[in-house]
Parts: sequence; structure tokens; C-alpha cells
Amino acid sequence: MAENNNKLIERIPEPTLRRLPWYLSNVKLLKERGARSVSSTQLSRETGIDASQIAKDLSYVKISGRTRVGYDVDTMIGVLEEFLWPREVHRAFLFGVGSLGAALLQDSGLKHYGLEIVGAFDVRRDIIGSNVNGIPVYDLSGLDRRMKGSNVTIGVLTVPIGVAQEVTDRMVECGIKGVWNFTPFRIRVPADIVVQNTSLYAHLAVMFNRLNI
Amino acid sequence: MAENNNKLIERIPEPTLRRLPWYLSNVKLLKERGARSVSSTQLSRETGIDASQIAKDLSYVKISGRTRVGYDVDTMIGVLEEFLWPREVHRAFLFGVGSLGAALLQDSGLKHYGLEIVGAFDVRRDIIGSNVNGIPVYDLSGLDRRMKGSNVTIGVLTVPIGVAQEVTDRMVECGIKGVWNFTPFRIRVPADIVVQNTSLYAHLAVMFNRLNI
Repeated sequence: MAENNNKLIERIPEPTLRRLPWYLSNVKLLKERGARSVSSTQLSRETGIDASQIAKDLSYVKISGRTRVGYDVDTMIGVLEEFLWPREVHRAFLFGVGSLGAALLQDSGLKHYGLEIVGAFDVRRDIIGSNVNGIPVYDLSGLDRRMKGSNVTIGVLTVPIGVAQEVTDRMVECGIKGVWNFTPFRIRVPADIVVQNTSLYAHLAVMFNRLNI
Repeated sequence: MAENNNKLIERIPEPTLRRLPWYLSNVKLLKERGARSVSSTQLSRETGIDASQIAKDLSYVKISGRTRVGYDVDTMIGVLEEFLWPREVHRAFLFGVGSLGAALLQDSGLKHYGLEIVGAFDVRRDIIGSNVNGIPVYDLSGLDRRMKGSNVTIGVLTVPIGVAQEVTDRMVECGIKGVWNFTPFRIRVPADIVVQNTSLYAHLAVMFNRLNI
């Protein structure tokens, strides 16, 4: 059942997608404490999210509870893990081996969650040819050639904002289907390309603003 | 004027806060290309955001344009930079020196944007007493003592989900005012504590889902 979930599902709202990992992490903890089933009321108490919202979110991934019993913990963990982080690993190139880029190359947690960075690109002569955490740093000018046969579909964007659009355009020309954008720059892409914005520094700005008022 | 902005402003909607860095990065690029003023129509073309939304967003930080001239580029850069990343640096401790935690300790970009991580905490004997990128790793049991006089207000949470709530509770007891939560766990905090969720792996899940449909 879990294996086919992705195919059954059309487009899940992004807020739901962001809450699913919360349910998963909570249910995993409940399992560690010995629980075999969990009600949406209990999950609501644990996560602070409305019980009816939880039921609705879970219905998107075809998880349904039984009256008076609730959700089966093992089923829920299995379905959510498979749905959120499919066993297949997506291969990625990273663009811009600056401070944040190099840090991401060192986070082996990414691979655990399905993203394997198999190469990095930069334009700086002093780092091209080196490697970070075993990942080779290539010359950006060779991207086209290196994409061929690489099975890479995702580009992680950690370049300076001044070249964010230009590097994105290059990636897309060379066949990248999804861009994980860590820059605070709003990149533009063709309609069939997926962009996920994760600007750490924008998140920082939000937090500072909340702290100051 | 810029200096007092934070005090003039009540609570800015989070979507606005997330868009402000986009405007800033675009205006900086326009300045590099020689522009001295920019209209909201032009910004709209650059960012793909509706011009009236841009005008509304900018009005929150008291940036207003002049008819037929638009926004003054230098003023806009000055006000947005000061507002988003005030000159004062917030001091932080990081909790959990695993793969992601260690990666963040190596990202010196954080300091550039106002977050200085001055110490890290863990419970693993083999890393307590070491340092990562010059930042010392302490024993979590000494948190209370190390908080005193440290001027640390922010905790960066990169622990395993099983202890995310427990470590958050410890931080808050010891005086942390803001938690930057990188775990996929929905932590609960008292009403006066700020939480910023940045779950990289949840963002990955969103991107994978979009790529698969």
C-alpha cells in the first residue's frame, strides 16, 4: 500500500506536507514509549494541532483511523516514512561551495533523508579539483558534460545572489528538474521546474523580528 | 530613520517578512547595474510578485515610493538591511553537534547575518571538550552555569527528535528567548518564547513530493 501512495495522490497542500513530519516524529516517540495505536485527540495534544486538521492531513496520504482505536502506530510510521522520504535516493549537484554550501556538503543527514549530493560546482580556481567530505568540486563550465549520465535531477543553490539567476538558468538548461534554493534571491524558472526556497537567513530575520517586539 | 524602524513597527505578517529579503537582493542587483531608483512595477517584473503586494509589504517598514520616480535604491537598501539584520549581533548556543549541528557551526554566513554561535552543547563524551570551527563543545549538564553572563538569547536546536522537547525545556528554564528549531519535531514552548521552525528535511520532503507528481 505504502509503495503506491505517491501515485495515488494528486497535489497535497504545502501546509499539510509540512505538518506530516511532525506527526511522524511524534508517533515514533509514542512507539518508543510502547504505544501501538494513537488517536487524533492524543496527537493533537502532543503537537498542538487541531484534531480535525490532523485527520484531514492524514487522509491525504490514505491513513485512516478506526473508531475508538485510533491510528495503528506501525502503519502510520510506515506510510509516512515511505511517503515523505521514498527509499529511492535523489541525486543532486550543489552550486556554490562557500560557507553554507560547504556546510551542507558535510551534512550526511541529507542522504539519510533521500538527497545524495554527488558533486559540487564553483568558479573559484583555488577550490576546483578539491573535495569536501569526499564530494568533488568541479568547474562550473563543465556542468553540461557532467550532467550526462549522472542521473542528477536536483540542484542545491548556495551561490551569491548576484549570480543566483544565471546559475539557475544554466542548471535548467542542463536538465535539472528541481532547485533547492538557499539564497535569499527569488529565482525564476520555467513552469515545469520545482523550486523549494529555504533561505536560512530570511528565517533568521523573521526570528529576530519576533524577538524584538 | 532606519535605526528606529523596529520600534515603530508592530507585528509584520510572516509572508511579508519572508518577501522582504527578496526585494533587498533584487534592489542590490539593480544598484550594481547602476539604477538609482526602482518602481514597484519593475520590482514586480524582477520578483514575480504583484506590484500592489510589493507596495504593501514595503509600507510595513515605512518605505514609500514617489510618483513617477519610484523607490530610492539607496534608501531601500539601507532600511531593509537595518530592519532585517540589525547591526547588533544575537548570541546563540547550539544544541546537538551531530551532522547538521556541526555543519551549522561551520557556516560563518550566520554571523554575517547577525547570529553568532558562541558555544555548543552535547551529551557525547567523545566530543565534549573539543571544538568545531573554533566553537567549544560543552557538556549539556553545565548549561545553567554557562548561560550566566553569556548574553545568549537564542538556542539553535539540532538534537535527535527523541530529546527535542526535553532540551527545549532545559533551554527555556535557563533563559533562552528564541529557539531556532531545525528538527522535524513540533516543540512546545511558553507563550513568550519565539520559535522559528526550519526543518531542512521537511523542505526536502515537500520538494520530492512536487517532483514526483
